Amino acid sequence: MTGNNKTRKGRAQLIAERITSMKSGRNGQAKEIKNPFQPAGVFSDDFIETLHEKALEILECYGIRILLPEAVKLFKKNGARVASDGQMVFIGKEIVSSAIASAPKQYTVKAGAQNRDVVMQLGNLVFQPGAGAAYTTDRLRGRRVGREEDYRELVQLTHHFDSLHMIPPLVEPQDIPTQFRHYSLLEAKLILSDKVPHIFSRGTPQVSESFEMLQNFRGLSDQEFKDNAYSYTVINTNSPRQIDAPMAQGVIDFARFGQLAIITPFTLMGAMAPITVAGAITLSHAEALATISLSQLSRAGAPVCYGTFTSNVDMKTGAPAFGTPEHFRASLAAGQLARYLGLPWRCASGSASNVNDAQAANETQFGAWGCLLAGATVIIHAAGWLEGGLTVGYEKLINDMEFIQMITNLCQNYPEKIEDIGMEAIESVPPGGHFFDSPHTMSRYKDEFYTHLVGDLSNYGTWKENGALDSDARATKIWKSILKENNRPFQSQCKVEELQEFIRRRTAAGGAPSVS
Amino acid sequence: MTGNNKTRKGRAQLIAERITSMKSGRNGQAKEIKNPFQPAGVFSDDFIETLHEKALEILECYGIRILLPEAVKLFKKNGARVASDGQMVFIGKEIVSSAIASAPKQYTVKAGAQNRDVVMQLGNLVFQPGAGAAYTTDRLRGRRVGREEDYRELVQLTHHFDSLHMIPPLVEPQDIPTQFRHYSLLEAKLILSDKVPHIFSRGTPQVSESFEMLQNFRGLSDQEFKDNAYSYTVINTNSPRQIDAPMAQGVIDFARFGQLAIITPFTLMGAMAPITVAGAITLSHAEALATISLSQLSRAGAPVCYGTFTSNVDMKTGAPAFGTPEHFRASLAAGQLARYLGLPWRCASGSASNVNDAQAANETQFGAWGCLLAGATVIIHAAGWLEGGLTVGYEKLINDMEFIQMITNLCQNYPEKIEDIGMEAIESVPPGGHFFDSPHTMSRYKDEFYTHLVGDLSNYGTWKENGALDSDARATKIWKSILKENNRPFQSQCKVEELQEFIRRRTAAGGAPSVS
Repeated sequence: MTGNNKTRKGRAQLIAERITSMKSGRNGQAKEIKNPFQPAGVFSDDFIETLHEKALEILECYGIRILLPEAVKLFKKNGARVASDGQMVFIGKEIVSSAIASAPKQYTVKAGAQNRDVVMQLGNLVFQPGAGAAYTTDRLRGRRVGREEDYRELVQLTHHFDSLHMIPPLVEPQDIPTQFRHYSLLEAKLILSDKVPHIFSRGTPQVSESFEMLQNFRGLSDQEFKDNAYSYTVINTNSPRQIDAPMAQGVIDFARFGQLAIITPFTLMGAMAPITVAGAITLSHAEALATISLSQLSRAGAPVCYGTFTSNVDMKTGAPAFGTPEHFRASLAAGQLARYLGLPWRCASGSASNVNDAQAANETQFGAWGCLLAGATVIIHAAGWLEGGLTVGYEKLINDMEFIQMITNLCQNYPEKIEDIGMEAIESVPPGGHFFDSPHTMSRYKDEFYTHLVGDLSNYGTWKENGALDSDARATKIWKSILKENNRPFQSQCKVEELQEFIRRRTAAGGAPSVS
Repeated sequence: MTGNNKTRKGRAQLIAERITSMKSGRNGQAKEIKNPFQPAGVFSDDFIETLHEKALEILECYGIRILLPEAVKLFKKNGARVASDGQMVFIGKEIVSSAIASAPKQYTVKAGAQNRDVVMQLGNLVFQPGAGAAYTTDRLRGRRVGREEDYRELVQLTHHFDSLHMIPPLVEPQDIPTQFRHYSLLEAKLILSDKVPHIFSRGTPQVSESFEMLQNFRGLSDQEFKDNAYSYTVINTNSPRQIDAPMAQGVIDFARFGQLAIITPFTLMGAMAPITVAGAITLSHAEALATISLSQLSRAGAPVCYGTFTSNVDMKTGAPAFGTPEHFRASLAAGQLARYLGLPWRCASGSASNVNDAQAANETQFGAWGCLLAGATVIIHAAGWLEGGLTVGYEKLINDMEFIQMITNLCQNYPEKIEDIGMEAIESVPPGGHFFDSPHTMSRYKDEFYTHLVGDLSNYGTWKENGALDSDARATKIWKSILKENNRPFQSQCKVEELQEFIRRRTAAGGAPSVS
């Protein structure tokens, strides 16, 4: 989407692609999509360099507290200064610059089917729905604490939409005891989808069991598994300037096993970060650099993704806000820093609204435009996120998918063909006439336009006759029909049984502790 | 908002501006705002040139039907070929290129107060709420045919928000007979606001009376009035390839009196225009060029604004759609053509939704981003537009204002000051601590963040206790309180009485016919 789109793709091919990729939101033919917008920035290049230098100064002079002795040791061994408390680590510039140099700029996270592989690099675009919620809500069953059943349904909804590329931990299945929860989480992701699964960093016991399940399910040798990322985790720092033990352990484990760690300082301006965009992003950048350094010290070249989730709080109440101008600016600044490093990066949209209303739509879309124009590679929480992430809503997810599918549509190359102008149609339709039955229209009408998912274009009278349902109410029918359809990817029955047998055996043996 | 923001505005000044411009949405200090985004395009520069050439070919070879003999005569006098029916006009390239050359690239439309003046040029950003609706709706009184009372209320709401820069014909006051309606429309605009008013092109009798009222109300000599635009009209062609009599008359009258004509072919792809973006935009461009030519033939140098409103229809039902990927692409293409001409231009957002729901928010915001990234100067229908323009909704207007105010916030220059990073705060807040009471926070917390208009950030429990109101319900309180506040601009009582006396006199004399 620039003034210089030089691709000349055949019309037939384009229509075919559009039919398969847009009509129902589903076709199994997901593919690498490119962000069509030129990245925007909020600061000058000079000021971005200053922020980077200040971040280095924070790491070297103020230090960062790391609560995992193994990680502290790794830093110390590589030349970092450690305070007498054994936790405050002062990381020199050389460690950071080696890490930036060795972190891969482009890599593929392999899925259960090749067309689901995710190519991570600047310029690509990857969407995830809302993740990590404690609650879920829908119009039929109301707001409730997340259960395994909800989680599985949300995995199915995520699998359904080709414009969602990875399977995050949508809602926490709190009816499953913590020592067994990683089984439940990964089983659903592997059986109900062939997209790239998330694995929680909740200590080595659960992570290594999860890797074992994944490796066996995908039929990979130890070497194959280590040579490529097949899963990802999200690493949140405990801002300001702290990396908790399970997070540090996750960075190390994922790096050593060649799996992807998405590094995300979650910094709310005015709360766990300075109140300014410049300050919050500098702190976030410092924490991301420290965590990327830990990854690269664990294994140089390990797949790691730069990231931030920086928004603001309402200073009157302390409530987190999302999809604000400050959130937008912070995303732009983070994108400038990611491009400064040359690394793929993740950003996030989302809403603070308590319900799937106009506020919710406006905030999520505004935040997503911030990510899009910031050139984010992965946009997390792009669908379904309510209450600042406490809840993932079914109807909210469906409504946000309309936006994501429209963006995916804009990512398609737009062909430039003289015959598209339709001069013969323009000549033959008389002044004041219409083009409905022109051959130029008739040959194209089936596939020319985006097909709405939940949008209702009927006029007021028809809409009223049909029950005057708003887009929240209409979304209920849509998620119900997707779940009813119960479309599943092909999975080897033998592999499924093997996975379930593994889970039965480990469950009987007491599971694995969750470290938090 | 680029990587090279070199402005170094004082922090105090910026905060002061932000307080006044954002807190309540109102301060009387509106000012020229600049689009912070680099314009995007959808076609190559070569293809844009091709579309322009094809548009010239349409005008020269296929012709355009013009239903006003005076306009046909003007074209003929200047070298255009006219068919034997006296209506089909074939406009040569020279006429068009002279018109493009003489159309001003930058001009000011003067308002009732200097801080309300609108500077029209590429790069500036001007918002208008939804216009031209037959119905209006709010939660208290329901959906109804527009009345004078509704129209006056909507003018007051438009006046309230500094981020709305012109007063369009929001809803048609159908309780006022057509021969008196122009009195009612302009009286409300002049007395309830000091922003730039719209005047309908419904024939010379009403237009000239409107000019007379406006000129007298502003206290201008004939020459002063002719030398500057103080009002605007919107000219819709009757696509394809037709200009109706009152529209052509409006172009001539507005040009001769130096008032602004915003030219807007309203072309729905697949209905009154070819089904493709390339075709619809080429047709729209041809019609805009013909109309701009008429303006410039009437008076070279008359203020005229290029424009389009090109979206698509649903091919299954023929229903108009807005805020779609096709609408977005058409806006980008029109922006490329406007920049090719060098003219300021208008575009439009809007929604087909029947109610102020997530669909409505998503469509209006998506369409507005299309306009923003297309570099539109004036974005019309940016707030309140429902049912594809049949209805303007009070609550919808309030919800859309949240988005427009957030965009206005992004348009502010963002200062780059080392002290904003807050290194001393980052150093002094311990790992895992918080910045709530840091001096860096305390000195900034009142003004650092955008203040929400209708967004509610309270947590789920508090929100439920407060009645579980969604953003539609909350918006009702907001528009009611704005109307109750009844803030009016300063107007000379003598001028008000003079205006009302004029209207009384002309009403007694039978008014002026509306030509349609």
